[in-house]
Amino acid sequence: MTDAGSKRWDTRLTDERLAIEDRLGTLLPAADEQPASLHEAMRHSTLGGGKRLRGVLCLSGHRLFRGAFPGAALDAACAIEALHAYTLIHDDLPDIDDDDVRRGRPACHRVYGSAIAILAGDALQAFAFDVLSQSEAPPSNVVAAVRLLSRAAGSRFLVGGQVADIEGEGAEPSAEKVTFIHSRKTAALIGASLAVGAALADAPERDIAEIEDIGRTAGLAFQIVDDLLDVEGSEEEAGKGLRKDMKKKKMTYPAQFGVEQSRETARRLIAEAKARIEHLGDEGYIKYLFGLIVERVS
Amino acid sequence: MTDAGSKRWDTRLTDERLAIEDRLGTLLPAADEQPASLHEAMRHSTLGGGKRLRGVLCLSGHRLFRGAFPGAALDAACAIEALHAYTLIHDDLPDIDDDDVRRGRPACHRVYGSAIAILAGDALQAFAFDVLSQSEAPPSNVVAAVRLLSRAAGSRFLVGGQVADIEGEGAEPSAEKVTFIHSRKTAALIGASLAVGAALADAPERDIAEIEDIGRTAGLAFQIVDDLLDVEGSEEEAGKGLRKDMKKKKMTYPAQFGVEQSRETARRLIAEAKARIEHLGDEGYIKYLFGLIVERVS
Repeated sequence: MTDAGSKRWDTRLTDERLAIEDRLGTLLPAADEQPASLHEAMRHSTLGGGKRLRGVLCLSGHRLFRGAFPGAALDAACAIEALHAYTLIHDDLPDIDDDDVRRGRPACHRVYGSAIAILAGDALQAFAFDVLSQSEAPPSNVVAAVRLLSRAAGSRFLVGGQVADIEGEGAEPSAEKVTFIHSRKTAALIGASLAVGAALADAPERDIAEIEDIGRTAGLAFQIVDDLLDVEGSEEEAGKGLRKDMKKKKMTYPAQFGVEQSRETARRLIAEAKARIEHLGDEGYIKYLFGLIVERVS
Repeated sequence: MTDAGSKRWDTRLTDERLAIEDRLGTLLPAADEQPASLHEAMRHSTLGGGKRLRGVLCLSGHRLFRGAFPGAALDAACAIEALHAYTLIHDDLPDIDDDDVRRGRPACHRVYGSAIAILAGDALQAFAFDVLSQSEAPPSNVVAAVRLLSRAAGSRFLVGGQVADIEGEGAEPSAEKVTFIHSRKTAALIGASLAVGAALADAPERDIAEIEDIGRTAGLAFQIVDDLLDVEGSEEEAGKGLRKDMKKKKMTYPAQFGVEQSRETARRLIAEAKARIEHLGDEGYIKYLFGLIVERVS
């Protein structure tokens, strides 16, 4: 990529992140609306941090198919970010991963207690579907978006991956189990993010399936990189505690395949995702976003 | 009501409960689908118990407006029951109400642990929207149903009421606070159940709003009766532990207004709901369902 091209995408990414943050702040109930603790907790964990990768991918999927509803795509991006925020709140709970720091700030339960954290997560999931359901896009496309997001969020994908991740702690690792966990825990929602944008742009069903699968491929690379950063990264940059996977005997890519092979797999998956998204007509921005995923460990 | 009329409704209610139970069993992932603990937990808490009041009201709202999609109404009834089951799982968690028995069986976290219980609840909420999104009803009606259910489930209603309920423990009670809690914690989802059925039947917006409000009125009575049963009921019949509200200093109707006045209020609300639903054209079945709510304490 030329430097000029990369700079253009940097600017777009910054703009889109700000647009998502801003819109999320408007859509979420105000911090002083009763019950205030609940609404504060929802805002604490949804605003003021995060790479907004999933939201930006949603906008990109919509743009790729020349969608006519940028407002609907922005709201869907917010819905997806709210849903992602709920999963982080629940993952961090003492009963689950027991993490204290998230996005450089105290985890939700550290500030508001576990009861409010559980309920703030629950409310954010409902909020995601509430926002989607108020979309200005045509109803048939909105229904498709709800279907894609709810499936990715459910027991067969996101939550199922999280359960397998917990149950994998300390168990005998295997390539099959690691792939089961990663493709569900992380990759499904990243795939759905692109697909929801495409669905709201009225993309053909075949293209929605293809872009979802491309997103899952990139999403798998994302989780591998996240595992690598847990081994090699800086806590300050990550905004969360690291070196926990080994302590918890988590079933990670580096634990199963070693650092070098994991890095190589992430690169290969990203190269594949880039080639396939170019084939769908990407002008370069989605490839740039995919590139950012592996850049973190290259 | 004549005995013959009542018997006819008894039979219909039994049939509808069985139909919901049966369909839920088909829609939920099988207990041996991986991760099995998650799917077992989801089935444990959703099947094999419950009055199915919300699901039956959804079917009734659809029938009242001569809906053409009984299959869509049945699936929506299952979605609502799954969402209700998720709220019970999370309410019972040690971090929230810390209850061990539900519907005459051990609470989800007592069997599967808190982590799986949290995640099973999360997955059931996603499942509810997944099922709704696969509805055979026209997309614009499905979007309306998603909107009604997600709003009722969110921070401004169901979850907000639950937070106010927790925060009300031991606080100075007031009529305003009790009404805030009850109208959100319980009444909103009962109102939405009727409204979702009506929306899937393509009822006019004004009628959807009216039937939702009628359902909330009956739902408020339902929660008052639940409070009364906590004071006066039998644990065996309730299928859960009782006499907990006083111990926890919960802000309940009987605590605020006394037993007699609470019973009187419940009766008055049900009489109002019956009159209004008759006005909307109910042939008698919804009135009968409303009647069952107060019958429990009369």
